[in-house]
Amino acid sequence: MSSIQLLLSVFFLIIFSSCLPTTQYKIPRLGAFPKNIHRAEPQTSSKSSSRDLVTFYYTQTLDHFNYKPESYTTFRQRYVIDFRSWGGANTSAPLFVFFGAEEDLDDDLDAIGFLSDNAPRFKALLIYIEHRYYGKSIPFGSRKEALKNAETLGYLNSAQAMADYAAVIMHLKKKYSAKNSPVIVIGGSYGGMLTSWFRLKYPHIALGALASSAPILYFDDIAPQEGYYSIVTKDFKETSESCYNTIRESWGEIEKIASKPNGLSILSKKFKTCYPLNRTFELEDFLDSIYAEAAQYDYPPEFPVSIVCGGINKASAARTDILDRIFSGVVAYLGNRSCYDMNEFNYPDTDEWRWQTCSELVMPIGHENNSMFPPAPFNLKNYIKDCKSLFGVLPQPRWITTYYGGHDLKLILQRFGSNIIFSNGLRDPYSSGGVLNNISDSIVAVSAVNGSHCLDIQRASPGDPHWLVIQRKIELKIIEGWISKYYTDLLEFKDQTPF
Amino acid sequence: MSSIQLLLSVFFLIIFSSCLPTTQYKIPRLGAFPKNIHRAEPQTSSKSSSRDLVTFYYTQTLDHFNYKPESYTTFRQRYVIDFRSWGGANTSAPLFVFFGAEEDLDDDLDAIGFLSDNAPRFKALLIYIEHRYYGKSIPFGSRKEALKNAETLGYLNSAQAMADYAAVIMHLKKKYSAKNSPVIVIGGSYGGMLTSWFRLKYPHIALGALASSAPILYFDDIAPQEGYYSIVTKDFKETSESCYNTIRESWGEIEKIASKPNGLSILSKKFKTCYPLNRTFELEDFLDSIYAEAAQYDYPPEFPVSIVCGGINKASAARTDILDRIFSGVVAYLGNRSCYDMNEFNYPDTDEWRWQTCSELVMPIGHENNSMFPPAPFNLKNYIKDCKSLFGVLPQPRWITTYYGGHDLKLILQRFGSNIIFSNGLRDPYSSGGVLNNISDSIVAVSAVNGSHCLDIQRASPGDPHWLVIQRKIELKIIEGWISKYYTDLLEFKDQTPF
Repeated sequence: MSSIQLLLSVFFLIIFSSCLPTTQYKIPRLGAFPKNIHRAEPQTSSKSSSRDLVTFYYTQTLDHFNYKPESYTTFRQRYVIDFRSWGGANTSAPLFVFFGAEEDLDDDLDAIGFLSDNAPRFKALLIYIEHRYYGKSIPFGSRKEALKNAETLGYLNSAQAMADYAAVIMHLKKKYSAKNSPVIVIGGSYGGMLTSWFRLKYPHIALGALASSAPILYFDDIAPQEGYYSIVTKDFKETSESCYNTIRESWGEIEKIASKPNGLSILSKKFKTCYPLNRTFELEDFLDSIYAEAAQYDYPPEFPVSIVCGGINKASAARTDILDRIFSGVVAYLGNRSCYDMNEFNYPDTDEWRWQTCSELVMPIGHENNSMFPPAPFNLKNYIKDCKSLFGVLPQPRWITTYYGGHDLKLILQRFGSNIIFSNGLRDPYSSGGVLNNISDSIVAVSAVNGSHCLDIQRASPGDPHWLVIQRKIELKIIEGWISKYYTDLLEFKDQTPF
Repeated sequence: MSSIQLLLSVFFLIIFSSCLPTTQYKIPRLGAFPKNIHRAEPQTSSKSSSRDLVTFYYTQTLDHFNYKPESYTTFRQRYVIDFRSWGGANTSAPLFVFFGAEEDLDDDLDAIGFLSDNAPRFKALLIYIEHRYYGKSIPFGSRKEALKNAETLGYLNSAQAMADYAAVIMHLKKKYSAKNSPVIVIGGSYGGMLTSWFRLKYPHIALGALASSAPILYFDDIAPQEGYYSIVTKDFKETSESCYNTIRESWGEIEKIASKPNGLSILSKKFKTCYPLNRTFELEDFLDSIYAEAAQYDYPPEFPVSIVCGGINKASAARTDILDRIFSGVVAYLGNRSCYDMNEFNYPDTDEWRWQTCSELVMPIGHENNSMFPPAPFNLKNYIKDCKSLFGVLPQPRWITTYYGGHDLKLILQRFGSNIIFSNGLRDPYSSGGVLNNISDSIVAVSAVNGSHCLDIQRASPGDPHWLVIQRKIELKIIEGWISKYYTDLLEFKDQTPF
């Protein structure tokens, strides 16, 4: 695999960090995820219908960290409120605030159930805030203008997004007379990073954070670069040793055929590609994407890894050709189609999320030697070169650890900060960059051995496995503890002279 | 006093928030401060001479929170290192980092003794970093260009300055192999705000902060607006009741004379103004400034308030005219001159610090009814109007409390954060916006009843009063505690698998 090929692969992977498969069109194909949502139907009491959700727009400052006249430019930031369970003004009932991430907020409203499932228990006001530059929260008048170039994209970064959230929450606390209401911020994946960082940077606004599947250690040199693919490998191996072996051997087979005369044409036919392959990598990257996505969203009850391996193993029983077996896995995962688009998992070069990964969110992910993938270490030099040619700017791979930290996390935070849950599913490849051990009494890790990416904050369903029910219960208990301690503090505090 | 007059007065006052009287030319006139420095001569061991200080420049990013191509513009940020006491590379000996504020770093190097006085005890490396846009750390090539307009001034704010400090410290920890060295950040006044906010925002970089005379609560609606002038009043009243009464009565007398035909001319003569007065307010503002400055820097052994009151009271004994007595106070404070410039304490409209107060650092300071000053409540509307006309931008009076917090400080921080000393002198008018009570075991207040603005971080002198020696000892003991706890943690941490 050439370094540019690797780069593309890494780009693609990083795009995956969402709680949802990022593009809308991929969701139905994932299988487990949308069905999981629909299974929640019986719980009508906690299911949000659009009737219950009220959409608002906040006039948001474009640049919080500059005071040039053009920094005062504003844009309309969307947020959605669910009032149904709220205790009401001046009751100090909590606010649960969901931090949108690199997706349209509508996707979250469908999938994220943690807030609505638990609102009645806490009498919480539910607030979902969309991340700048996504969905309907677009500066510069249109998405086209906003994504035009580095000049307009420059304002898209995590620090600005968190300042947005701070401004919206302060506004709402005032608007709804909720001065003393504790705020719990909830998010997953990149949104989970944002919630944990927000509790650290804005403790005066958020009492606590639930950071689901937040790989805050997958930056700089903290987590091992091969972590992601080693977990994908483990997931497949645990699901089916023979499936794992087939995949591991398939890459050599692909290269072997590709090196033949008409090799690419043979491969194109074998994999029913919609367009003839130009490079072997197109196919490799396509397969890589399927395995990574299946592992990341290996949700019950379908378990996509089992679906892929089911396809591969079924074919193994009938045929001996390795690549036919691999193709059978593709069909099992994506469905039977007239052709397969090798670009299905690729994102446009000027995509918002690619911008974010090309500026500050540089997650160094590579393939290790012992994975079921061909070795391909992360190559920062090429990564930088590629970003430079895409956007004309240099990535800042050390900025995240400068602004948010991450190195020696326990040493730093065991005597600083409080009230963060880092929840992870250990089958999630991104858990390799997650916080998996308790830092202190109140900065804690809640991991589920069988969990996958952001599963705990998805809508609960009667069919959920016991361990998932338990994981959520633990999280709720902890949050309840924060809130009840806060109420005690508040009472004491109100008895004193205001500080 | 008209609202515009009040505005100017408030502007002027805010300019005063430095540890040093801000303009160079004022220092000799303050009396106590420069002498205090010279008294330190005998302690040659802790006195820095320019020989011991090495000056460096760091290539600093202009905009840390945007990734537009022009944000990558850099400027040369000055920092100065004192290596004399340092334990050396890989010894984990601490770094003491002084945060420059709204002044030339050279001024700090002369006056701030806390670092050099205590370096040998801690084997500390001393680092003094200049604040962007001040001294020799000027973006855009020249001060003239940097201060040109809001476009170039836009990058001058506290969040950018703190990110600068983070970048420089990370750079130096690497450069001097000081990965495990604990960092203690030290600053006074606005620089003290920066250190306390820095410990809260960058706990992974600074282990602790000494925030001397940092009025972090003088924002939004937290501290009472009349706090500043009520302490000026108290200082004068405690020093001399008759002096206080004379000043209190003088304003009416000024207005009375001003209302006469040729009143301004009479006043001009009486106060030997260098140019004829155009408005009564010029004189009122000039006197206001003298009293405020004397109170703020009421340092031993001279105690400027005593000097002013000495002049007033001496004249009282000889004459009965109130304004002659007031003038005598002026002469005592500023020295016998051929004339007095009523603009002596005014700053140019396009000054850096005025920009900062006109953008984010909006400190609402007014005169209360019971002070020795004429009533003049803070008028935000006019303040905003004035800033708008000066710079073309609107001040953001709520941004500081949004980004850094401040409301309900004890409620928020008693279970969050650690290792901050808020030190104050209670004779300092700005202590009315300071943190004067302990927040938690390790976020503590160290106040000296007789102390004034930033006195504790000035160079120690054999003649220092006992209470000042004690205040510094307490601060050192606390810092020593943080560091020794950190070393214990570090040992334990190194025994574990890296996180």
